[in-house]
Amino acid sequence: MSPEVPPEIFHHQLQQVLDLLGIFVFAAAGALMAVRKNFDVIGITLLAEVTALGGGVIRDVLIGAVPPAAFTDLGYFGTPLLAAGLVFFLHPQVERIMSAIDVLDAAGLGLFCVIGTAKAYAYGLNPIPAAALGVTTAVGGGALRDVLAREVPMVLRWDKEIYTFPALLGAGITAALIEFDLFGPVTATAAVTFAFSFRVLALRRGWRAPRAWRRNSGTSAEEQ
Amino acid sequence: MSPEVPPEIFHHQLQQVLDLLGIFVFAAAGALMAVRKNFDVIGITLLAEVTALGGGVIRDVLIGAVPPAAFTDLGYFGTPLLAAGLVFFLHPQVERIMSAIDVLDAAGLGLFCVIGTAKAYAYGLNPIPAAALGVTTAVGGGALRDVLAREVPMVLRWDKEIYTFPALLGAGITAALIEFDLFGPVTATAAVTFAFSFRVLALRRGWRAPRAWRRNSGTSAEEQ
Amino acid sequence: MSPEVPPEIFHHQLQQVLDLLGIFVFAAAGALMAVRKNFDVIGITLLAEVTALGGGVIRDVLIGAVPPAAFTDLGYFGTPLLAAGLVFFLHPQVERIMSAIDVLDAAGLGLFCVIGTAKAYAYGLNPIPAAALGVTTAVGGGALRDVLAREVPMVLRWDKEIYTFPALLGAGITAALIEFDLFGPVTATAAVTFAFSFRVLALRRGWRAPRAWRRNSGTSAEEQ
Repeated sequence: MSPEVPPEIFHHQLQQVLDLLGIFVFAAAGALMAVRKNFDVIGITLLAEVTALGGGVIRDVLIGAVPPAAFTDLGYFGTPLLAAGLVFFLHPQVERIMSAIDVLDAAGLGLFCVIGTAKAYAYGLNPIPAAALGVTTAVGGGALRDVLAREVPMVLRWDKEIYTFPALLGAGITAALIEFDLFGPVTATAAVTFAFSFRVLALRRGWRAPRAWRRNSGTSAEEQ
Repeated sequence: MSPEVPPEIFHHQLQQVLDLLGIFVFAAAGALMAVRKNFDVIGITLLAEVTALGGGVIRDVLIGAVPPAAFTDLGYFGTPLLAAGLVFFLHPQVERIMSAIDVLDAAGLGLFCVIGTAKAYAYGLNPIPAAALGVTTAVGGGALRDVLAREVPMVLRWDKEIYTFPALLGAGITAALIEFDLFGPVTATAAVTFAFSFRVLALRRGWRAPRAWRRNSGTSAEEQ
Repeated sequence: MSPEVPPEIFHHQLQQVLDLLGIFVFAAAGALMAVRKNFDVIGITLLAEVTALGGGVIRDVLIGAVPPAAFTDLGYFGTPLLAAGLVFFLHPQVERIMSAIDVLDAAGLGLFCVIGTAKAYAYGLNPIPAAALGVTTAVGGGALRDVLAREVPMVLRWDKEIYTFPALLGAGITAALIEFDLFGPVTATAAVTFAFSFRVLALRRGWRAPRAWRRNSGTSAEEQ
């Protein structure tokens, strides 16, 4: 349990920029959902923080890295405030570039599934559980956001383009790279790019995951 | 905080078989709810994992046993994948044996409330909080499943046969047995059997818990 | 990570009385929501426990203070049982004094945002994250209650008097007091009183937080 320092995949400053960019995009998506639901400025801020930092906080709690980085690094904590402020004033403009946001969100998804897997591995987890925590890092914040805002969690929806699967692939590839001692800036970039591209392609082409065998033609009996 | 190794109540291999059986049954129940809600294969798998492992993960986080066993033991992690795969293909058959599933789920409930209490006690908690965490182990995964799938959590529903109460009894008996130094394979089996039988009887005879005093005849003003 | 003992702001026995009073009031609010939703006695008890202790448990998990105080101090654990029992039998009377409950709840809010911030700071967090955890302590239990009972979380609702903002102010003042070495019984009481009074004034005068810029006149497109 005396873990090494979590690894930095890329050059220190580059990684910080990437981290904060991913956090900013996730936060903007959370703030935008709050605006659509007509939440007030507090709700917008809370949903931005939860969406951006929730996945990493869950991962850090599960691997014993407390207090989580989100609570010790002011950049992590402050970035969602910026995103919430921006969306508070400029939400019509932000709505208009939502397809651009979707692409940036895909970049966050790709980045965090790789970073999350590497951090969990550095804390001594085996490759498969580390990959599971990488996926949690990438999609956990969004799941918390959806639960708080009373949406069906994106990670469970069959009627949306696949979201969790690209993260699963990116995390799996990362775990394999680490296991075979091939993990470095170049291969990490390749894993991020692969998960990112897969998600963007899924969005563009409307890829969906199969529902239960012989049930694909049915519709949900539930309220969704 | 330097806990002893969590105790094994039964012979090592027997306990592993029981653990995995309980996890399998909980996972099947989670996967089946996902199929009914028409979630895709990713949603089915996630809901199976959360239902089966969620209670134990919450307990492990609360007692400081991180990373949780669910993330370090591949058997724990892999078993819900098996259950999800089975339900994905065979859900009509699984639906047909749901009353059998209910009985198996009751077995998981009985088993996990006893195991969870014993593990929390081994980590230095007092008997009453240890029993509370035993109940959490038994019902926490189902509560997470219901929150994610936007159901009223089973643990709160008055219109269903009592579910949490048998776990509460099993955990309480376990805590008393430990406190009076009477906890062993035989008495543990008795506690599991008692909680299990109570739940099965509640199902068969439609036992429900009382609602608030002088309100039992009313119906909910809410959407349930 | 070897934290000092969490500080006691007030005289030991006074602080215990205040803690338990705050827990009792939060628990009563949770139990009352359960009664309104027609949950059974188990659901009433669970919702009372979660509402009263949830915020502190989340904070303790995030700062690594496990097992959380809620699981090691029987007074913390038992007080919600008392509140649940009282509400179970006397809910019509409790309903009638709900405006009094709102005032007591405001007292709990003020108390816990200050105590929570001080405890997080004692565990080595910087002032801003410590204040964030103080807010979490104050509003986290209510958020968990609302998620379990399928309500829109109070912390996000724009159509209610501001709830999170007074806690945010109280926590921020506390963090500033600690940072400038001015934190003591007198200033802590002032911070508690300020947050409490702000919330009571918000209730009396119907203060609400602004919604997103140029959207204040709209109504939510969602189900609320």
